[in-house]
Amino acid sequence: MALIKKPMTGMKDILPKEMQIRDYLIGIIKETYSKFGFTSIETPAVENIANLSSKQGGENEKLIFKIMKRGEKLNLESASSEADLVDGGLRYDLTVPLVRFYSNNQASLPSPFKALQIGSVWRADRPQKGRFRQFYQCDIDILGEPTNLAEIELILATTTTLGRIGFKNFKIKINDRRILKAMAAYSGFAEESYDNVFIILDKMDKIGIEGVKEDLIANGYDAASVEKYVSLFDGIEKADNGLLYLADTIAEFLPDEAKDNLLEIIESVNGTKNCDFDIVFDPTLVRGMSYYTGTIFEIEVPEFGSSVGGGGRYDKMVGKFTGQETPACGFSIGFERIITILMDNNFEIPNQGNSIAFLVEKGIQSEMLCNIIKEAQKLREEGIKVLVVRMNKNKKFQKDNLIEQGYKEFKEFYKNPIVK
Amino acid sequence: MALIKKPMTGMKDILPKEMQIRDYLIGIIKETYSKFGFTSIETPAVENIANLSSKQGGENEKLIFKIMKRGEKLNLESASSEADLVDGGLRYDLTVPLVRFYSNNQASLPSPFKALQIGSVWRADRPQKGRFRQFYQCDIDILGEPTNLAEIELILATTTTLGRIGFKNFKIKINDRRILKAMAAYSGFAEESYDNVFIILDKMDKIGIEGVKEDLIANGYDAASVEKYVSLFDGIEKADNGLLYLADTIAEFLPDEAKDNLLEIIESVNGTKNCDFDIVFDPTLVRGMSYYTGTIFEIEVPEFGSSVGGGGRYDKMVGKFTGQETPACGFSIGFERIITILMDNNFEIPNQGNSIAFLVEKGIQSEMLCNIIKEAQKLREEGIKVLVVRMNKNKKFQKDNLIEQGYKEFKEFYKNPIVK
Repeated sequence: MALIKKPMTGMKDILPKEMQIRDYLIGIIKETYSKFGFTSIETPAVENIANLSSKQGGENEKLIFKIMKRGEKLNLESASSEADLVDGGLRYDLTVPLVRFYSNNQASLPSPFKALQIGSVWRADRPQKGRFRQFYQCDIDILGEPTNLAEIELILATTTTLGRIGFKNFKIKINDRRILKAMAAYSGFAEESYDNVFIILDKMDKIGIEGVKEDLIANGYDAASVEKYVSLFDGIEKADNGLLYLADTIAEFLPDEAKDNLLEIIESVNGTKNCDFDIVFDPTLVRGMSYYTGTIFEIEVPEFGSSVGGGGRYDKMVGKFTGQETPACGFSIGFERIITILMDNNFEIPNQGNSIAFLVEKGIQSEMLCNIIKEAQKLREEGIKVLVVRMNKNKKFQKDNLIEQGYKEFKEFYKNPIVK
Repeated sequence: MALIKKPMTGMKDILPKEMQIRDYLIGIIKETYSKFGFTSIETPAVENIANLSSKQGGENEKLIFKIMKRGEKLNLESASSEADLVDGGLRYDLTVPLVRFYSNNQASLPSPFKALQIGSVWRADRPQKGRFRQFYQCDIDILGEPTNLAEIELILATTTTLGRIGFKNFKIKINDRRILKAMAAYSGFAEESYDNVFIILDKMDKIGIEGVKEDLIANGYDAASVEKYVSLFDGIEKADNGLLYLADTIAEFLPDEAKDNLLEIIESVNGTKNCDFDIVFDPTLVRGMSYYTGTIFEIEVPEFGSSVGGGGRYDKMVGKFTGQETPACGFSIGFERIITILMDNNFEIPNQGNSIAFLVEKGIQSEMLCNIIKEAQKLREEGIKVLVVRMNKNKKFQKDNLIEQGYKEFKEFYKNPIVK
């Protein structure tokens, strides 16, 4: 029987060239983050379906690859709905598994716990160019650190990593959910409309301030509120220090603590950064997920239209599951987007070392082959990559192919060295 | 709603300590195999259910985690069997995906193609101690190399890797399916009984030669054949060179080529090995999978009862799927078994580098925090791991925990340095 050659719809095979860059990126990530005291963990790809349907995943919960019950537990005849047939699902993110992991293993984990996760997640999204149904996520999270030391370390670890891969001139946009709320309160929006106001605000980079204004009006919000809201963004833009201007203006609605927190993060990151990027207060930054409770941030790189990573503080989520409130803050980098950028820019992995291909004529004597392999082994021990292959009839073609694979030197071995 | 804290039945969370060893092992594997010219590839975790049910997986096909169809394709009412509900499954090994990958991407791959795969596979096996339903496999395969250069390179790459992790005195057992068959033919067994004879022979290490003899008789095989068969193993044991003795004795049934092939592999590996192991001809080595066509091999380490890896030549399998015969040979190391051995022996990762924990008193001034982080960043750039954490009230307890996590040095920072 013939196999179906293509991967499952929306999934992809990763070829050696991309895989090399992925391995390189994972290496840099693991090494850099470990210098900041993050430790790797891994959770199973499959989670209990109940955990994946706990409403923390928003829209992603509609995209779960579900796993059928097995053996006696599967009872087709008596099943009246999908739920009767399913007991697990492939994880759609690394946050729900992290929280489960933490609640399962808390006694064996340090506090604060600094976790690094790199792994596949699955979403049965509509297939489209450049987006796949299995993709890597790369998250760092600090659980148990209430102060902004968490934010500062997360941002520095992430920017150091990006710097080491060669990203320049990128931008960390930062905001706080409490500022978003205070701005809305100051403008006179009702609390129950905040989420919708933020959804509209989130379109700012696409439709501009005028578009946001129109959209808010079209949604039936009070014109005076909309005017007041829009003027805040105007004022921030014109001010020397937008954050200070804003905090002053909406002081009545914003706890000092929130302003000081953000200022301290921006100053500390600016004062200690070791590569070329800016950290800027962005009052239009919203971040979709409703679980954020404080600081939120996002990475913008000039090479790429949209964000290549983001995160924030989610102090209420862990407690909801474990019963014990635990401050938490995380930063996720868009692994696949970074790979796309690197591939599009023909990224060359630095310091790849020497490589040599030994071409061995067919039918060479056993003893000679032994000597050839001995020589290869010696070079490999010195750190050189050595490919030992049979010489093809079309040697020129073979060498061209090997050059394309990255081999720079060749050595040829013949059955009868005297003839050669 | 509370999460279910435990992972899915039979699956496990991987904690930082084990994860460090796994990452270390993966690093060694990738680095060593790449020196031999193997390139990493990756295939999706999910394969089309038709590919997973193609009879190449033997018993494993009964253990598949099956994935439900989604959206309109899922039709509970009209489904009359499981097959109507399922379109994918989690891969149970890396060989079927490799063959699919090869047939899908052959035009972009070099020949011979030397693939390295490290990744999770899933089997809904009965849960038991130390065996999990999601586990790593680590396979190297050479597709398109008909000569024993493939076997030699596979064995050297694998043994070099084991040597680098610190394994000593291990043994590579090697045999050839053609020798197994020739021995059975010489003894007078009928061809259709070979598979069953080999299944009994495979129990040799558990029940001994007498047990094998009894079992063959009990299975109704001709006593003279059994006697002749058993005497072969006797003769091999007593001979100076078991392989030469055997090849001589059963010469009529064994192509010279098979003997020469095995001799050359053993001599070449012995002549070029760079760590402490033996490669020995073992006429009782069977290897379960029926797809092997020639050489077969297995690793035995003194620390562990059973095999920690194995492989062989499977020249007919790729062609069955692609329609184009392609010689193939692979070696799989038992990743999880090796991790178990390393963990049981309290393996210490070498050259871990320095690590220091900065304990920062709560409420320290923003400017001071900035200087502390600057100092941390500088040390990190020098390759030192620096953890910056808030100082706990119980500093002694905190330090003890940090020592357990591997931090060797500490530096303390106080709000008011003068008081200190």
